[in-house]
Amino acid sequence: MDTVILSDWLAARLDRTAAEPVYRQTLRLMQQAILTGQLPPGTKLPSSRTLAEDLGIARNTVLHVYDQLTAEGYVISTTGSGTYVADTRPDTAAVNTRKKPAVTSVDADGADQAAEGSKPPKRDLRDLSTRGRRLIDQAGVSAKQWGAFMPGVPDVAEFPARTWSRLQARLWKEANPDLLTYAPGGGYRPLRRALSDYLRVARSVNCTPDQIIITTGIHQSIDLAVRLLTDVGDRAWVEEPCYWGARSVLQSSGITLVPVPVDDEGLNPREQDLQQPPRLALVTPSHQYPLGMVMSLARRRTLLEYARQHNVWIIEDDYDSEFRYGSRPLASLQGLDDAGQVIYVGSLGKMLFPGLRIGYMIAPEHLVDTFRTGVAELYREGQLMQQAVMTDFIMDGHLTSHVRRMRALYGERRQILIDAITARFGDELPVMGDEAGLHLVLGLPDHANDRAVTAAAYDAGVIVRPLAAYYSSETPARRGLLLGYACVTNEKIGPAFDTLARVIEQTVLKKKPTRAA
Amino acid sequence: MDTVILSDWLAARLDRTAAEPVYRQTLRLMQQAILTGQLPPGTKLPSSRTLAEDLGIARNTVLHVYDQLTAEGYVISTTGSGTYVADTRPDTAAVNTRKKPAVTSVDADGADQAAEGSKPPKRDLRDLSTRGRRLIDQAGVSAKQWGAFMPGVPDVAEFPARTWSRLQARLWKEANPDLLTYAPGGGYRPLRRALSDYLRVARSVNCTPDQIIITTGIHQSIDLAVRLLTDVGDRAWVEEPCYWGARSVLQSSGITLVPVPVDDEGLNPREQDLQQPPRLALVTPSHQYPLGMVMSLARRRTLLEYARQHNVWIIEDDYDSEFRYGSRPLASLQGLDDAGQVIYVGSLGKMLFPGLRIGYMIAPEHLVDTFRTGVAELYREGQLMQQAVMTDFIMDGHLTSHVRRMRALYGERRQILIDAITARFGDELPVMGDEAGLHLVLGLPDHANDRAVTAAAYDAGVIVRPLAAYYSSETPARRGLLLGYACVTNEKIGPAFDTLARVIEQTVLKKKPTRAA
Repeated sequence: MDTVILSDWLAARLDRTAAEPVYRQTLRLMQQAILTGQLPPGTKLPSSRTLAEDLGIARNTVLHVYDQLTAEGYVISTTGSGTYVADTRPDTAAVNTRKKPAVTSVDADGADQAAEGSKPPKRDLRDLSTRGRRLIDQAGVSAKQWGAFMPGVPDVAEFPARTWSRLQARLWKEANPDLLTYAPGGGYRPLRRALSDYLRVARSVNCTPDQIIITTGIHQSIDLAVRLLTDVGDRAWVEEPCYWGARSVLQSSGITLVPVPVDDEGLNPREQDLQQPPRLALVTPSHQYPLGMVMSLARRRTLLEYARQHNVWIIEDDYDSEFRYGSRPLASLQGLDDAGQVIYVGSLGKMLFPGLRIGYMIAPEHLVDTFRTGVAELYREGQLMQQAVMTDFIMDGHLTSHVRRMRALYGERRQILIDAITARFGDELPVMGDEAGLHLVLGLPDHANDRAVTAAAYDAGVIVRPLAAYYSSETPARRGLLLGYACVTNEKIGPAFDTLARVIEQTVLKKKPTRAA
Repeated sequence: MDTVILSDWLAARLDRTAAEPVYRQTLRLMQQAILTGQLPPGTKLPSSRTLAEDLGIARNTVLHVYDQLTAEGYVISTTGSGTYVADTRPDTAAVNTRKKPAVTSVDADGADQAAEGSKPPKRDLRDLSTRGRRLIDQAGVSAKQWGAFMPGVPDVAEFPARTWSRLQARLWKEANPDLLTYAPGGGYRPLRRALSDYLRVARSVNCTPDQIIITTGIHQSIDLAVRLLTDVGDRAWVEEPCYWGARSVLQSSGITLVPVPVDDEGLNPREQDLQQPPRLALVTPSHQYPLGMVMSLARRRTLLEYARQHNVWIIEDDYDSEFRYGSRPLASLQGLDDAGQVIYVGSLGKMLFPGLRIGYMIAPEHLVDTFRTGVAELYREGQLMQQAVMTDFIMDGHLTSHVRRMRALYGERRQILIDAITARFGDELPVMGDEAGLHLVLGLPDHANDRAVTAAAYDAGVIVRPLAAYYSSETPARRGLLLGYACVTNEKIGPAFDTLARVIEQTVLKKKPTRAA
């Protein structure tokens, strides 16, 4: 198009009633005309005065447009001679190298076609990588994060937000600039001290404050350990069943998973597992996730000794261990380790609120510097203000009193749920893993499709998770449902369970629907 | 040891003056005696009454110790018959499988030796994996994060902390429980809306609020894209030089880096690069990091077209682009992309404060759901309260006014530093990349060892970064120092530069030291 046509073309497209300012519209339209080749390279633009008159807009607006076009390389201005469209067409020689992609149908002239305004083909989901597709296909994350019976979510409505807010306001009043910048590796030192004091007593871990590395949670802790201690293609033992999130993190770092069965004493490797020592073993000894059994002392000692002899790193995920009903919390595996081979990981999210994103790991002493460098290098952590608030929260005693209060509350809810299950099903459906944590497992008969039950329950308004989602195998050893009782108020547990029970009766037990009481 | 000796052994070790309660000491010592084999399996423990009398402690204390030992599986209590040490020795058959590790010197009896109390060999840094060692060896992260001339750190002391604190207090007063739990994939919706409005105007990106995914920063954004879109062993173009952090993230995900030279027009792939299309290209078109040049429109169009033809994903890191002195910010590459192949990543940390950890990425429309699932599955994000504060901060106009104020302030500091450089060195040392961002590059002669200058400057109390640290190659094309001027007050720039200049003169220019004025 020549420059007279340009004026008409612009005039036809400028919308003086639009929210977008005329300057932006003019700029955008001229860029578009150049990119599509409607204004080919070498075209002389009308003078700013002429274009302004043609369009009936301020000459300054056109000058600004021309300046920006010049700055961005769309046009070249030569003093005295005028303004010309620059040649910014893609370098065809560079684009058309010998290797042709297998999937594209664009021919050798594709570049020019595109430059002339034809729509290039959209990419689609086939473009995910193999690991990306596996991650998405196997994703365990739920769209809902709250309500009966969402597992693993504490009752955030009970969090003493007022106390937190007060501590937070006090710290922000000073706003120490040192706390606004990146975190040095390892996190806020007073928090590390407070946590090591807490964990030594509560979890019998064996560590100095230096060994504590603050992270954003279990995911980041595992990710860091995996990237520092394993290589692509290394094998890792995971419990079968285990937490889906840990599986995703390991796999997306190129680890080959070896699911190892668990029995009533915890991890129980088979002969074939033992014959091929992995590089890493991820275990939940205090409270197997999701089934709830405790790893026996003999198994712990065997695992530690096996790991020592075969150079296996152990990640101990001490998930949910603060909430134990009736029995005292058991000591950590880390506390038994005298070979510096256990990496202990935990999180404050379940104790306070998940959105907090404060976790911690205990690095073996000789790896402390390495882990600190790693966490800073890979994630560039910050959030020191929040870590300072957390420190005050612990030091003022709010953490222990909140956990104590929640343990009593969750204990009540657990009992209400167990009573509801027993009242409805008697011994027909077993309850597992109710001694600790924020959920229990309601066992289903072997023929049951727990994924189908979950979907039907969801449609009826109740969230549960199928045990199958925690197994790597397509043929899980057990069928069941994870029922979280922590984020449901006492009075809602019964009605929600009634709804779930009806779904189970209809889909699994094939009973006639019973009428609600 | 028999049970009489046990009493003596315990009595000799209990410290009644220690901070550790007697209960904990007794428990710990008995666990130790059992683990080391000093109390072998089958040993009958003295009755609680006897032990209490022998030690002169309360019988209840001993009862609690026995209870805990029973709960943790150290001992077995049989009603009427007494309490016996359980056999928890490691399963020798399980530990000693045929495969022997190459590095260990422990013989087949190692398990028993350890059980008898010998100290197992400590692991050392050789146990890092190959990728772990590379990450640590190449780590670019600095121990200090503040002061003259730390690059890439804004002046956090200028952050309007009072305003932030007020907005924060208002939100915490209500503490909506929905904002305390995990973030649904993508982050807080109002923040996504505010950011897309901001980025459309400020950066000419082309996106809907849905396409925005909130992350914790550039590192996480790149990590997510890499894990979803690439496989282990895939090749990625990175600019040579480029940001060390991006390199670390890519490599630790199993990506092979292909450093591609940059010239005054930005990324300039060689024939050999073009012949082997990568899976991914990571570029900084608005403001090459760290050299500062702008990618020309022709190069942008060529890169986009090449990427489209060869199925290459482009990650556009729009680092620092808000701080541009004298010229207007240029449009993003993402705004030119009509094939859905550019992933735009940015961060709010440089605009506000780095510890904030709020970043964002713009996903191509057809990948929005995938990216949302990915971010939730891999990182279990939260921090919705902070995202809500951020939203209010933007909506109330504080973001733009703060950026405007900082741009003026950093512009001043930049000028003071440039004046100091010119006054001292004239044209002898070139200044590069000062048009935008929070740092400039002071060029050094080709023979200079910029790492050595950095170390000498550090000893003299001035932080800089060597350009060499940004190159993949061992023989960087340019030598120089990155000087951050953002986090130094105006009056400190001159004296700090004097110190640095003396170091440069002594180590590089071999001039006689000049006396400070």
